[in-house]
Amino acid sequence: MAHTATDPTAALAFAQANQDAALEELKAFLRIPSISTLPDHSSDVHRAAEFLAAELLRIGMQHVEVIDTPGHPLVYADHLHAPGTPTVLCYGHFDVQPPDPLEEWLSPPFEPEVRNGNIYARGAVDDKGQLWMHVKALEALLQQDATLPVNVRLIAEGEEEVGGEQIAAFLRAHPERLKADVAVVSDTDMFAPGLPTLCVGLRGMIYTEIEVKGARTDLHSGMYGGAAPNPFVALAQILSGLKDAEGHISIPGLYDSVERPSAAELKAWRSLPFDEAEYLAHEVGSTELTGEAEYTVLERLWSRPTLDVHGVMGGFTGAGAKTVIPAKATAKVSLRLVPGMTPADTFDKLKSYVAAITPKGTTAEVRLIHSGDPVVIGTENPFVAAATQAMKEVFGKDTVFVRGGGSIPIVGDFERNLGIPTLLMGFGLPDDNLHAPNEKFNVANFYAGIESLVRFLTLAGLLSVPHPSEMQTEL
Amino acid sequence: MAHTATDPTAALAFAQANQDAALEELKAFLRIPSISTLPDHSSDVHRAAEFLAAELLRIGMQHVEVIDTPGHPLVYADHLHAPGTPTVLCYGHFDVQPPDPLEEWLSPPFEPEVRNGNIYARGAVDDKGQLWMHVKALEALLQQDATLPVNVRLIAEGEEEVGGEQIAAFLRAHPERLKADVAVVSDTDMFAPGLPTLCVGLRGMIYTEIEVKGARTDLHSGMYGGAAPNPFVALAQILSGLKDAEGHISIPGLYDSVERPSAAELKAWRSLPFDEAEYLAHEVGSTELTGEAEYTVLERLWSRPTLDVHGVMGGFTGAGAKTVIPAKATAKVSLRLVPGMTPADTFDKLKSYVAAITPKGTTAEVRLIHSGDPVVIGTENPFVAAATQAMKEVFGKDTVFVRGGGSIPIVGDFERNLGIPTLLMGFGLPDDNLHAPNEKFNVANFYAGIESLVRFLTLAGLLSVPHPSEMQTEL
Repeated sequence: MAHTATDPTAALAFAQANQDAALEELKAFLRIPSISTLPDHSSDVHRAAEFLAAELLRIGMQHVEVIDTPGHPLVYADHLHAPGTPTVLCYGHFDVQPPDPLEEWLSPPFEPEVRNGNIYARGAVDDKGQLWMHVKALEALLQQDATLPVNVRLIAEGEEEVGGEQIAAFLRAHPERLKADVAVVSDTDMFAPGLPTLCVGLRGMIYTEIEVKGARTDLHSGMYGGAAPNPFVALAQILSGLKDAEGHISIPGLYDSVERPSAAELKAWRSLPFDEAEYLAHEVGSTELTGEAEYTVLERLWSRPTLDVHGVMGGFTGAGAKTVIPAKATAKVSLRLVPGMTPADTFDKLKSYVAAITPKGTTAEVRLIHSGDPVVIGTENPFVAAATQAMKEVFGKDTVFVRGGGSIPIVGDFERNLGIPTLLMGFGLPDDNLHAPNEKFNVANFYAGIESLVRFLTLAGLLSVPHPSEMQTEL
Repeated sequence: MAHTATDPTAALAFAQANQDAALEELKAFLRIPSISTLPDHSSDVHRAAEFLAAELLRIGMQHVEVIDTPGHPLVYADHLHAPGTPTVLCYGHFDVQPPDPLEEWLSPPFEPEVRNGNIYARGAVDDKGQLWMHVKALEALLQQDATLPVNVRLIAEGEEEVGGEQIAAFLRAHPERLKADVAVVSDTDMFAPGLPTLCVGLRGMIYTEIEVKGARTDLHSGMYGGAAPNPFVALAQILSGLKDAEGHISIPGLYDSVERPSAAELKAWRSLPFDEAEYLAHEVGSTELTGEAEYTVLERLWSRPTLDVHGVMGGFTGAGAKTVIPAKATAKVSLRLVPGMTPADTFDKLKSYVAAITPKGTTAEVRLIHSGDPVVIGTENPFVAAATQAMKEVFGKDTVFVRGGGSIPIVGDFERNLGIPTLLMGFGLPDDNLHAPNEKFNVANFYAGIESLVRFLTLAGLLSVPHPSEMQTEL
């Protein structure tokens, strides 16, 4: 059974004719309170998996399976009958964040309601609505002659909101079951309304603890203050030594291997509709922005390493006054890494520099808690071109390439275990209230996402299967 | 009933003849687990008060009263029948620290045991044993003809170990009930075994919180790191700006009003048996000592202002990695003050300087939590001379004058509410394990303390009643 569907016209017509049904199905999916972090809701997470699996079966996907795990289940399906074409791995998650604080919702979080062109519900955009776009695109393509223009595997997880441990374990144990040439994840947003967006880079990071020790035990600050080392003062001196007042990281050699984005990418970023005053006032809300003034805000967020302190442990933190010189103080410190940097090298440099600037009378230990590589996908990648063309046909605009300042673990997992790049093709909007009350998804974007995916899968079917060497994600 | 006892011989003979009885009584006092911080033991604290009151009544003190308070009780007694002589206010406390960790005690904390010339029990030296010296000295003086060589008031409290709130309130409300010319407190230790010691100065302090705010709410460090201000980084920059690497406080003008100890006092300190290597190895246990290298360790501890950080609040302090840029960070910061400095002026200077060095993008607020004046008593004070002579007669050595780096709140309370100086005449030893397992009190020191107090009260009776202006404690 070879594929013949190189023309998406019929599939698009089907999708358009069935928009109302798709929205009603999504509502039913959203009514399941599949909150992965609350043990009371684990049966709901399972129910969402069964709901998704039933629909995948109904539309004609094959090998549909709810995969039980020690945690929440995974859902798998495939349709691998397009020889000579690439294999696309679709990913999404069907678990959601808790809805608290409930009193701030204008309509109940698990009773979806459409208002002003948006569907409001917990999970509307993150990620049930975006996962449902994939299902509806596959349905539209399959309805004609039960074929797809490419080989497709779909994997969905039920605990993305609590760390994604089970899918990571599955990927490590069974990479062959998800063998593909590219992954498509719709779990991000567009840079601005109407602006098709691909996220083509993510920062990596190292997350560390710096522990400073002074005296053997806690001492009374009256009796010993002035002669005994204070590890909090020493820690402050170390931390302020790691970053200067202008936001530059002072660790020697840290910037040596940083790769700058291409001139074209930088030019594209400068043309994005980004209003710094608006960002300061409405997103950050501080007196002014900080960081390296010689770079634009988007460059600082997407292509520059940063160092942040997340908390400091030890000592006295209760109410009132306890006059103690604590024996130790520990800071949680992370660095975000950009292409060209590696976690191992960055950690080595941090460690050496902390050792060099540790104040006298104290000792410091630097521990690595967690790390992740930076990821970047070349914009000349043929799947990127297919996605770009697909979205141009839907939105009438060129796709903007952005990066993300944070990391999306599944992207690293696909890279590490499958050796494939990921297209982060999301249709949310910046004000969709992810993880907050009144989460929403723009209904027009939901439909546009379905059409974009229909077109993308069709265009991907025209590509030749890449050789592994061509597909190597740039790091 | 005029006093006639200007010769302590009979009283000393009585005290010596009754040493065994005094020790047995102290054991009974120590068996009461009067732990003020544990609600389960509040009846024990009351029992200790009743025990003390009964003994004061038995030995012939008058107006003996257990004074109930909203917290633990006070015990008051007086004997005011020595007209033309000064009034001495004796102070002690009958509550104790918790005994944990129990497993480290060689004999149970509330079953007093004498080993190697020491009595081991919780409260042995802090402060039941030292309070009992006062009781036994008064008994020895009273036993002859029911007179005392001076007017005496005694006040003891049951919550010194939890802040002394009730005695402070009583002093504010009823200063006339404790009207006296000098206070004698035995709740400190001798600089070294056999070396009679008076503590004639205490550092003051301001205890503050420095709160730094950045963004309006917590932000994701991946999405915002590099442009949003990090209040922990800013706080580290502020704290490291407050103190340089050599231990000098960088607040402008802070040292301007610092009064140096007299040349005689400094000379005396240099002759004290202080071993810096021993202090580093056994008391502090850090790799080296810190602070202002141009001053001796004792000068740094007793006569130099210091700045310490006690803890930092806010942010993420759990296990693992949470990638948050917290909205705020707060440090507990105190300065110790020495004569010449005032809390108000020091706080103003700290506040102004923090404002001047607060990094861009953040705001800082400095709050005063607690403050206390530095205290110093002139060594030429006639009561100091009386105490010195008394201890020389007992120990055969000149008294050494030391200071304390911390504060003893009751000294400030006496100063503020009664306008009188306090003699800190203690007989503990540096290794008595205060607040630790195996607390002890040297039995010979217990007896020597009784004799010293008999002699001191006798000598004090020879002094004329000071005019208020002469008695002003130097600040």
